[in-house]
Amino acid sequence: MSATDREQGAMRRALDLALQGPRGVNPQVGAVLLSASGEVLAEGWHRGAGTAHAEVDALAKLPAGGARGATAVVTLEPCNHTGRTGPCAVALIEAGVARVVYALDDPGEASAGGAGRLRAAGVDVVSGVLADESRQLLDSWLTVQRLGRPHVTVKWAQSLDGRAAAADGTSQWITGPDARADVHRRRAEADAIVVGTGTLLADDPALTARRPDGTLYPHQPQPVILGARSVPDDAAVRRHPRPLLHRDGENLGGESENGPSLMAELRDAGVHRVFVEGGPTIASAFLRAGLADEILAYLAPTLLGAGADGADRPALRVLGVDTITAQRRLTVTAIERLGDDLLIVAHPKETA
Amino acid sequence: MSATDREQGAMRRALDLALQGPRGVNPQVGAVLLSASGEVLAEGWHRGAGTAHAEVDALAKLPAGGARGATAVVTLEPCNHTGRTGPCAVALIEAGVARVVYALDDPGEASAGGAGRLRAAGVDVVSGVLADESRQLLDSWLTVQRLGRPHVTVKWAQSLDGRAAAADGTSQWITGPDARADVHRRRAEADAIVVGTGTLLADDPALTARRPDGTLYPHQPQPVILGARSVPDDAAVRRHPRPLLHRDGENLGGESENGPSLMAELRDAGVHRVFVEGGPTIASAFLRAGLADEILAYLAPTLLGAGADGADRPALRVLGVDTITAQRRLTVTAIERLGDDLLIVAHPKETA
Ligand SMILES: NC(=O)c1ccc[n+]([C@@H]2O[C@H](COP(=O)([O-])OP(=O)(O)OC[C@H]3O[C@@H](n4cnc5c(N)ncnc54)[C@H](OP(=O)(O)O)[C@@H]3O)[C@@H](O)[C@H]2O)c1
Ligand SMILES: NC(=O)c1ccc[n+]([C@@H]2O[C@H](COP(=O)([O-])OP(=O)(O)OC[C@H]3O[C@@H](n4cnc5c(N)ncnc54)[C@H](OP(=O)(O)O)[C@@H]3O)[C@@H](O)[C@H]2O)c1
Repeated sequence: MSATDREQGAMRRALDLALQGPRGVNPQVGAVLLSASGEVLAEGWHRGAGTAHAEVDALAKLPAGGARGATAVVTLEPCNHTGRTGPCAVALIEAGVARVVYALDDPGEASAGGAGRLRAAGVDVVSGVLADESRQLLDSWLTVQRLGRPHVTVKWAQSLDGRAAAADGTSQWITGPDARADVHRRRAEADAIVVGTGTLLADDPALTARRPDGTLYPHQPQPVILGARSVPDDAAVRRHPRPLLHRDGENLGGESENGPSLMAELRDAGVHRVFVEGGPTIASAFLRAGLADEILAYLAPTLLGAGADGADRPALRVLGVDTITAQRRLTVTAIERLGDDLLIVAHPKETA
Repeated sequence: MSATDREQGAMRRALDLALQGPRGVNPQVGAVLLSASGEVLAEGWHRGAGTAHAEVDALAKLPAGGARGATAVVTLEPCNHTGRTGPCAVALIEAGVARVVYALDDPGEASAGGAGRLRAAGVDVVSGVLADESRQLLDSWLTVQRLGRPHVTVKWAQSLDGRAAAADGTSQWITGPDARADVHRRRAEADAIVVGTGTLLADDPALTARRPDGTLYPHQPQPVILGARSVPDDAAVRRHPRPLLHRDGENLGGESENGPSLMAELRDAGVHRVFVEGGPTIASAFLRAGLADEILAYLAPTLLGAGADGADRPALRVLGVDTITAQRRLTVTAIERLGDDLLIVAHPKETA
């Protein structure tokens, strides 16, 4: 049995409602309750971790018994999981809902199974309605579910021959304004931006996402500094609109006795997209740890080589590739010309 | 006054005749002598340094006085230079030629001026007829005239992050079959192929231009080995169809008391196009010396970085760029996808 036109319309409305919730640890979900005759009885959405799920939010707006025989239209499969709130499947059954129409199956291990539970209780269940739209809405949240950690982009700028700077460390500017504008656009799509203390102390970066005219994009990534060295009191990053996270960076993604890894901490803080901006030591550390889902290499049409005394500033350092069979093959998904520069977008073959 | 249809036709024929001569130190030139009524009296072409120029070759086929009142159609301005042969302008005047139609002005400092000399002697002179075709025919020779040395292509293959090999030196294969086929096609267009003793001893390359099926292209570049170390008796390059040139490589292009530079020696041997295939030390030496007219960087979609112990094999080594203002900016003229690899064709900005 498929969804009616009214139910499709209600799903569109539910997708809009979902957007009213915050992007974070929990998914953005919306719900609309329809009467048997197709009238809207109530609407709800999820306001973030620890608050009611969308279906329950909608049910709560009706008097007791008000949802009996109703249809619940929800953008994500009702959960079957007792967390900070009870399972939504149970709440819907107890409220006497007769039919549930939802968009996307719940990808979570603990929370999935709601549809089965509803069906077992005799509720009509239709799934896959506007699933693509819901998937798009939940894109980054789904990535976190799949990876068990935020999605990580590692970005660097290099000369054609793989140097990040000239022998004396100077590098402004290798790439041109179009490449830099592209980086800022992408910063604005990230939830966190990571640099090492080396870069912090060398460049004093603001780590904000700025338009070419210098104004801030509305969404700013949270600045994260990695390294044991301290962040100077007058560092530009201290004037960032979002509070600074400063960690030693010793455990980027693995298991450790000394508390959660950086990835776990960021995930638990609702970070879906991490943008690693270097420098070379930090970029190499993420690559070595297998924590690079996307690679952005901005190539400037220039050669730097090593200096007369052999001093060398490669854009990537130790990857631990000791022989050619250990090379880190990439799949190139896009090549873009940005002014004189070239952007190569790639991802590791393993995660292809 | 412009050329007649018959003269245009004779120029096409002269261009064909030119091709019968060898590509070398001297230009390929063809000539056709037409009677006053437009009949072909004689044809000639230049067979290489030390032999008669095309006009003189054609004149020699006529009995004394046979060219009186004739029109000489030549693909290059008749020379005004006494070298191993006398000036062609004088030979044409003395033979009583009434009119000269030629394609391209002579770019040489010593040899130019033939047209003026002919005009001064009362000969009708028309220039620029099928000049583009002649220019195309003489492309590489003209480059040598302009540069005063052969045209140099420096080629290397690298990982995206600028490494020529993994930490232990292994590199087969970073790039794929399409990129390798492209290299061989380009080898077949070169007159000489250069590698250092480092590469010779590490890889024992054949330095032939081969088709993917392993057969040889008809034109083979002359192999040139640079370095003080000797070439082993059983080196593959000793079985190359053309004789090996082995030089220490200490003076690539400059002035020196110890005889001519490599560039001068190759130019004097009729080499127009040099293909430098590395390794990294030799490629860097050519770049440092400003002897790279064309750069071919084959980028494989892979990361190599440095090995666990920091051992690093960059595709380019010392360029002597000590600070960013000394960077070697390039103009990228083409970006090609070759299988999974990327070919970046560029040339130094200075010579843009
Ligand atoms: N071309 C580019 O795209 C680009 C981008 C950014 C920066 N840069 C340039 O790169 C230079 C700085 O790079 P860098 O490589 O020296 O420094 P970096 O990568 O910015 O920072 C390295 C530091 O990060 C800390 N760290 C934290 N976790 C780590 C881990 N897991 N592994 C290794 N180190 C960890 C260590 O500092 P502690 O000693 O404090 O623990 C380490 O010294 C600057 O000159 C900057 O201008 C270039
Ligand atoms: N990725 C690529 O495209 C590519 C291409 C070719 C080779 N390779 C790899 O590169 C490695 C070899 O490279 P390499 O850099 O060690 O050696 P190389 O560049 O092939 O040869 C270097 C040697 O050339 C001689 N030489 C002559 N003239 C010179 C000059 N003007 N300046 C400097 N040296 C001069 C010196 O040898 P003497 O001591 O004998 O005087 C020097 O040691 C091999 O592992 C090979 O597989 C990679």
